[in-house]
Amino acid sequence: MTPTDPGPEATPPPPTRRRPGGRTARIRQQVLDAVVAELGEHGYDGLTTDAVAARAGVHRTTVYRRWGDVGGLLADVLDAASDDDWQPPDTGSLESDLAALNQEIHTALTAQPPIMAALIAASFRSEKAAEAQQRLWEDRYARCEIIVSRAVRHGELPPHTDARQLLIAATAPLYHQLVLLRTTSDPQLPGHAARTAALAAAAGAFAEPPSACSV
Amino acid sequence: MTPTDPGPEATPPPPTRRRPGGRTARIRQQVLDAVVAELGEHGYDGLTTDAVAARAGVHRTTVYRRWGDVGGLLADVLDAASDDDWQPPDTGSLESDLAALNQEIHTALTAQPPIMAALIAASFRSEKAAEAQQRLWEDRYARCEIIVSRAVRHGELPPHTDARQLLIAATAPLYHQLVLLRTTSDPQLPGHAARTAALAAAAGAFAEPPSACSV
Repeated sequence: MTPTDPGPEATPPPPTRRRPGGRTARIRQQVLDAVVAELGEHGYDGLTTDAVAARAGVHRTTVYRRWGDVGGLLADVLDAASDDDWQPPDTGSLESDLAALNQEIHTALTAQPPIMAALIAASFRSEKAAEAQQRLWEDRYARCEIIVSRAVRHGELPPHTDARQLLIAATAPLYHQLVLLRTTSDPQLPGHAARTAALAAAAGAFAEPPSACSV
Repeated sequence: MTPTDPGPEATPPPPTRRRPGGRTARIRQQVLDAVVAELGEHGYDGLTTDAVAARAGVHRTTVYRRWGDVGGLLADVLDAASDDDWQPPDTGSLESDLAALNQEIHTALTAQPPIMAALIAASFRSEKAAEAQQRLWEDRYARCEIIVSRAVRHGELPPHTDARQLLIAATAPLYHQLVLLRTTSDPQLPGHAARTAALAAAAGAFAEPPSACSV
């Protein structure tokens, strides 16, 4: 659904939907499923390439050769999560689209086992995981820009609206409270953060100058 | 200044201002200064109690006995950071107070060496550090509530305004972009996030029902 995660049904990351088939793809899937399962059970500290190989039923040298280390495995889990056809919710208005998006983020961030939270935590341990996490967030925010362009088309927002800033304003409070501040989950939070961003947007907070050459 | 950090002048965490004096307090200060210096130079992975003891010029058993491990040392750095008289900026309006606060957060999050970022990262490694980080953020957000009560007093906001939610909306985009998304620092970000929160506040985003018994 969101920055770190492929969809509401998809924590843990789903099988890649357009699986090309074949033995290589099958092994990749087995290994990535094993990474997610091990991460959910033991967290980053308990994650080893040997345990992943054993769980996936593949030879440990296969894992070493293809993924290198735990960071490489986590990076591939995150990269594989973009390989889906997820689209942000289309509910008819800016605020309700943002609320539905936030609800997906909230669900993923509070899921048990906490796969999304563990992947974010892992990005503070492994540079490869950090880069893959950035790519995934970039992919998710880019896909979400359609929420803003729909709102522009419906006349809810001015034509020159900074979509990325609006989406970050709408979603950041969830990550801040649940990942950094580690406050207890508040079921009102997704809707409230969406409403705040929509009100700010209506007041012109994300309006860009109409044209660069008009200055 | 902000959630993780004691003040604009205070990345790395400052000497505790009301130092009670005496050998115990002096040793604590030497050790905490050494933790910050080691963290800045080597990050969490290079941080050891032995290196901290050596740098502080104290016996390693002193460190083990008093702080236990790296997590205990980091937790005490974070706890010591609250032991100051930091107050949020008072600049005359809600938006400019929030912008000045965000500027302090931005400065701390982009400082070199990246002490604040390293402490946040450490909170994903050590439960003790995570709890201390939560206490420090709680302390900082509680102190910042005066920004909102001043704005209420000046008639900028309705009397029943959820101060914490407003402050989180104002500051979350900085943490999200700089700590999680790891986007390159944008000098406009502090002011923009402040303006967004102030516009949402003016539109009633953080207004609470006037009284619990009126329902």
